[in-house]
Amino acid sequence: MAREIPTTRLVAGLPATVPFVGPEALERASGRPFTLRLGANESTFGPSPRAKEAMRAAVERVQFYADPEAHELRSAIAALHGVGMESVAVGAGIDDLLGLIVRAYLEPGATAVTSLGAYPTFNYHVAGFGGRLERVPYREDRNDLAGLAEAARRTGARLVFLANPDNPTGTWYGAGEVQAFMEALPEGCLLLLDEAYGDFAPPDALPPFDGADPRVVRLRTFSKAHGMAGARIGYAITAPEAVRAFEKIRLHFGVNLAAQEGALASLGDPEHLAWVAAEVARGREEYAALARELGLRPLPSATNFVAMETASAARARATVAALAERGAFIRMPGAPPLDRCIRVTVGTPAERAAFAELLRAVWPDVSAAHPL
Amino acid sequence: MAREIPTTRLVAGLPATVPFVGPEALERASGRPFTLRLGANESTFGPSPRAKEAMRAAVERVQFYADPEAHELRSAIAALHGVGMESVAVGAGIDDLLGLIVRAYLEPGATAVTSLGAYPTFNYHVAGFGGRLERVPYREDRNDLAGLAEAARRTGARLVFLANPDNPTGTWYGAGEVQAFMEALPEGCLLLLDEAYGDFAPPDALPPFDGADPRVVRLRTFSKAHGMAGARIGYAITAPEAVRAFEKIRLHFGVNLAAQEGALASLGDPEHLAWVAAEVARGREEYAALARELGLRPLPSATNFVAMETASAARARATVAALAERGAFIRMPGAPPLDRCIRVTVGTPAERAAFAELLRAVWPDVSAAHPL
Repeated sequence: MAREIPTTRLVAGLPATVPFVGPEALERASGRPFTLRLGANESTFGPSPRAKEAMRAAVERVQFYADPEAHELRSAIAALHGVGMESVAVGAGIDDLLGLIVRAYLEPGATAVTSLGAYPTFNYHVAGFGGRLERVPYREDRNDLAGLAEAARRTGARLVFLANPDNPTGTWYGAGEVQAFMEALPEGCLLLLDEAYGDFAPPDALPPFDGADPRVVRLRTFSKAHGMAGARIGYAITAPEAVRAFEKIRLHFGVNLAAQEGALASLGDPEHLAWVAAEVARGREEYAALARELGLRPLPSATNFVAMETASAARARATVAALAERGAFIRMPGAPPLDRCIRVTVGTPAERAAFAELLRAVWPDVSAAHPL
Repeated sequence: MAREIPTTRLVAGLPATVPFVGPEALERASGRPFTLRLGANESTFGPSPRAKEAMRAAVERVQFYADPEAHELRSAIAALHGVGMESVAVGAGIDDLLGLIVRAYLEPGATAVTSLGAYPTFNYHVAGFGGRLERVPYREDRNDLAGLAEAARRTGARLVFLANPDNPTGTWYGAGEVQAFMEALPEGCLLLLDEAYGDFAPPDALPPFDGADPRVVRLRTFSKAHGMAGARIGYAITAPEAVRAFEKIRLHFGVNLAAQEGALASLGDPEHLAWVAAEVARGREEYAALARELGLRPLPSATNFVAMETASAARARATVAALAERGAFIRMPGAPPLDRCIRVTVGTPAERAAFAELLRAVWPDVSAAHPL
């Protein structure tokens, strides 16, 4: 038999882990399908009817490659945010764009800063391109902005990742705090500002867009409030020179036709987005009340999920497991101190009611089995 | 104004070129839409009705992420080719997989071998990951297998790219010749065997699959005969250790839901694929007859396009330009000696007739304006 072909030293040294194990893999492992899917912060309200119509129409032209420049969509995004279209890059979701940014800016061996327990796919890309990761613990369940900026200065970091509103906590900062944070970063350090949940946030959490500022890449997605996670499309707003750098290395035909057409149509239906955001705001209140009823503390959230403190990692793990046994998929943060929480997506009223019933059923046993 | 953030040295040194300028960009530049799109080897016969139905159905679940492991589709692909599913990797088209393979196997500074004028996206990825490209001229309009193997040995190449059937010539080798070529490569050198056009080829051009052979990655796509270019999905068959290496660096949520569902449905409709292949074979004959009628030599083709010799690069360029002025999008190879050819996708009977009419109209002027 022929000998194995060696991979690069970098790839050979990477661990065999993935950022997320999908619910489908969990179902295959347990042999038990989930009947309630509230673990991936998908919008179970679905996309705009206009977006669905556009995606169905795209099936009729799926034999053709989509425009690799996503010209129409980028124009619409630029108009929406009041920037030039040369400041807009489109990718196959924020995950794709994070990889692109890390590849473009992080020299092998250079340092990227993130919160301990923040979005694992960013960490995955940093490792995958040979970067070094500096993790700063959360502080009172929020990103520690002072700590992150200090770590960036101390390590000479080239990239800093910040999700605002945050995942997995749901907490957020106001635009002024985010802007002050940007000013506190060392020169030559790029801020990746992940605003995947921005459509659920109060407007004053989102700084005004500046399509000429090279110090920040703002990341937005159609996977959350727009209800198009399966379509794989998101975008970045940054300075034109960064967009030109991405052009040199990105997968030019990586964003599919239906996603481009659906995203464009969804931007034309702000009423749907507002309706989803209002429903989600209502659902967050319901979840908060449910948590308090059971003696769990809900974390404040400006996203489409709520993190609930169970008071210990053992309890959080047991809650996730007990819910999975009853057909409900939720997740929990992976790192302390957040791993004392469970994280539940705000679903439709029926899904929320089903979740409430299940949590009420399992919590007494879970808390009794794991005394504090 | 804030100072620009420097990219990596590698990215800073890359040229600002893209593998392909899309027809949409050409339309925007000229202000003239194409009415006949025969330049990107798309299957204008469209996808299987079953695939379309599956993609429309996927719109109803597009708020959910697709299975990042593409388990069902990989199982079906494995069954089709008689390999284990641990030998199957799915990506957002062959372009995505080429990038993944280059990233996994080509150390910066290491050499990859390809034919001069072969698929530009492979070259783009090699440059993008810091590799060195060794190009071997075509020989009698076919890949020079002896020359490619010699170049691989001489340069200590880690990767060799071969498209069979070939793009942009359409020519092909038999399975035995491909296997002998693989044996002639130096130890530790990986063959990227791009079979994007394999569904149009005679069966004896395709070696049997061996899901345990680590020396080759076989690449297939749903963009050509399956008629799903806009969906972005393709796959690789190779040894399980290579698939495991891809797992460490690939974009785990990069392949969209509709593409996965459509591809699975398309695999269940081999009759549609056979019908498309038969129509394409008929169309190739028509194009060959058309070329001979006008004094152009058609290259033999086992693909869904035909390259036609115009006898000079100036004539080829002028033909492409004259057709574009009349609303027809075709391409021509970029490198000598192939750049004396035009390359035309086999469309539907109506599209073929429209193309024939246009070529008959422009060729007398083009050839008169560019005497040999």
